[in-house]
Amino acid sequence: MRMVDLIEKKRDGGELDEQEIRWMIRGYVDGEIPDYQMSAMLMAIYFQGMTKKETSVMTDAVTHSGDVVDLSSIRGVKVDKHSTGGVGDKTTLAIAPIVAACGVKVAKMSGRGLGHTGGTVDKMESIPGMRTDLNEEEFFSVVNRTGISVIGQSGNLTPADKKLYALRDVTATVNSIPLIAVSIMGKKLAAGNDAILLDVTTGSGAFMKTMEEAVALAKEMTAIGESAGKRTVALITDMDQPLGNTIGNILEVQEAVEILRGGGPKDLQEVCLALAADMLFLAGQGDMQTCRDKVHEVIRDGRALEKLVEMVEAQGGDSSYIRDTTKFPKAPYETDVLADRDGYIVHMNAQECGVASSMLGAGRETKESVIDMTAGIVLLKKTGDEVKKGDVLARLYTSQKERLEGASKRYQQAIEIGENRPEHRKEILARVEKEEVVYF
Amino acid sequence: MRMVDLIEKKRDGGELDEQEIRWMIRGYVDGEIPDYQMSAMLMAIYFQGMTKKETSVMTDAVTHSGDVVDLSSIRGVKVDKHSTGGVGDKTTLAIAPIVAACGVKVAKMSGRGLGHTGGTVDKMESIPGMRTDLNEEEFFSVVNRTGISVIGQSGNLTPADKKLYALRDVTATVNSIPLIAVSIMGKKLAAGNDAILLDVTTGSGAFMKTMEEAVALAKEMTAIGESAGKRTVALITDMDQPLGNTIGNILEVQEAVEILRGGGPKDLQEVCLALAADMLFLAGQGDMQTCRDKVHEVIRDGRALEKLVEMVEAQGGDSSYIRDTTKFPKAPYETDVLADRDGYIVHMNAQECGVASSMLGAGRETKESVIDMTAGIVLLKKTGDEVKKGDVLARLYTSQKERLEGASKRYQQAIEIGENRPEHRKEILARVEKEEVVYF
Repeated sequence: MRMVDLIEKKRDGGELDEQEIRWMIRGYVDGEIPDYQMSAMLMAIYFQGMTKKETSVMTDAVTHSGDVVDLSSIRGVKVDKHSTGGVGDKTTLAIAPIVAACGVKVAKMSGRGLGHTGGTVDKMESIPGMRTDLNEEEFFSVVNRTGISVIGQSGNLTPADKKLYALRDVTATVNSIPLIAVSIMGKKLAAGNDAILLDVTTGSGAFMKTMEEAVALAKEMTAIGESAGKRTVALITDMDQPLGNTIGNILEVQEAVEILRGGGPKDLQEVCLALAADMLFLAGQGDMQTCRDKVHEVIRDGRALEKLVEMVEAQGGDSSYIRDTTKFPKAPYETDVLADRDGYIVHMNAQECGVASSMLGAGRETKESVIDMTAGIVLLKKTGDEVKKGDVLARLYTSQKERLEGASKRYQQAIEIGENRPEHRKEILARVEKEEVVYF
Repeated sequence: MRMVDLIEKKRDGGELDEQEIRWMIRGYVDGEIPDYQMSAMLMAIYFQGMTKKETSVMTDAVTHSGDVVDLSSIRGVKVDKHSTGGVGDKTTLAIAPIVAACGVKVAKMSGRGLGHTGGTVDKMESIPGMRTDLNEEEFFSVVNRTGISVIGQSGNLTPADKKLYALRDVTATVNSIPLIAVSIMGKKLAAGNDAILLDVTTGSGAFMKTMEEAVALAKEMTAIGESAGKRTVALITDMDQPLGNTIGNILEVQEAVEILRGGGPKDLQEVCLALAADMLFLAGQGDMQTCRDKVHEVIRDGRALEKLVEMVEAQGGDSSYIRDTTKFPKAPYETDVLADRDGYIVHMNAQECGVASSMLGAGRETKESVIDMTAGIVLLKKTGDEVKKGDVLARLYTSQKERLEGASKRYQQAIEIGENRPEHRKEILARVEKEEVVYF
């Protein structure tokens, strides 16, 4: 087999067969197929797309390019949740304890922040002592003891995806729906869960800017999951403005705890409820209404918050910060961004809000950057809110004073004030299962 | 500037500006832009094409990536000729002496065989003693003394093209009309002539299989030439069957000499006449009819053949082989391919005829292969000829007996015999100048 022939086949709109795809992924990981051939292939895929059969086989090849986690020693249906990324997205911190409090075991691997989006692992590490680098044995032991563990990716999981992603990043081939689907599902299938709930975000803060793209990605990913024998559902959620009222690591942990206490902003409540209920549904805990009731119940009676406390302690963290979130350090510098006119917030560019937060120190500008856990933004006005000139739109926090000015300007530019109140966008836009899309 | 942004721009159908293209080509030659980014760019160009402005600038960047020959010390209008490749194409060996005999100086760099196509330099080297590796000083001295010199590419000409071509070859991006145009014209413009006549071949033995592709390439290349300030014309010529009655190095030199003696096969005569007359026309030697008359004249009075003798001697070759082409060695092994039924030859797959010749030893299977100068094929029947079962279609020659069988089979499969005489295809199909196509 010659890679140049495979590139030509794909370039001309042909379908690569199973043997060809497996040979290509293996050869690429082994270093036998050079980057310059793979990047030409990726660009050909960008233009010609992939069939369902191709994405399924390529995902399987990516999944099996490294270790595959075996969760069979943990009893019950294990449900994973994955978000395609957003700004202010702290849902995992709330949902995982809720689901575990309902008796469904959560053994989850999460990621770090990437670009303008935050990552659960970074947020967890803002809790003093909290470990996210448990080895497999520790991970299993925590899940079996407490019913919940969330850690960073460990072991040699999907080396093919790591290599492909690094190449796509520098060859303008990131933005291909089948390649995104293969990358996400390759990792999810390697993580060993029985069912997968995908949170496909859409809007200005998401990678999928339009509803059409989000639906297409949701369909691709659920089809891959089903063909691998895992029940896979996608919720399409709004990310046209940041989720909740905080961006930044400590600020988001504090807000997630609010949710577990039955408080927190309404949009975040809605998304957490929908995701947690669907995870319970996929775990066979009854019909959707029953599952929603269960979520409300474990929040109301405090079991969900207790579950987070248990997990934090089991992973070496100081749970007193969860019980009293005012213990977290506060950034030494802050500034307010003010409304420069009367009107309504008609749009927030969520990606730019994320960039502003990153500029304050909450994200990584390079892979080596150290995160300022106290940095971030508290959003006091969001899309649809009425504002008067001089009102505080947001409060910005940082440990480095010189970062305030640039971040303020960036944030200000991300907010659009107009004369008329915009229509409300639903938090949960659609649910996709087995090719079928139900719009809400 | 970041290469990834340029790839994205092209991927999305944008036009790269002059600064971006020059930066990209320079960076690639310097090794600052890696192969894996350039191959993604090439694939994006494959799908999105290039504007006239882009191809012109990229060609100029390729031309100036290395040395550019300065022919200004040679008096008069210097006209180059370039063929996009074919099987049995020995036109340069006849045309260059014809044009020089008419008083127009020919200072030409030619190529070697590639794939199924032959190369003028290889053919010239079948003449004992003939040197094709003259340095610039020798080259100029021969042109000034005799009015003609044909050599191999020398010096550091278009290193960008060499690097790009090697990359395209392994990434399925060879077959892109703008990239082919840039590659050819980059080299032609570096060769320093004042005007350029392009022989764009089309049909089963050419890289451009269809007339549409040939016209598109001809338009692209002439536009690039004109934008570089060089008068550039393309003739579209038939390569749906091998040109003339011979394929193979010595066999083709012998046939070219026949042309210079006023003989040779009619199709080859036609193509040589058209190309030579147009070169004279571009050199300002009168209207087309006058130029055609001049070609006939220098053939009739023997001056064209004398010019070839002069050039061979000036480049160290033994001209007695030209005066008496029977002196050339003959291959020790030969076999005939016979017609297996009565009928007419309705089609010859010229590329496959070229491959059969290569299998006999006339071409290179790898870059390192040594050519068997005596190997090749004499075509006794061509498209349109009536044949009876058992007639000799072609005679195959080689120095290695074991090569006969495979080559015979391959040749046989390339020839299609049918019941009805096919329509005659014209040798010269069209002429393209300044976007205007005149069909014959």
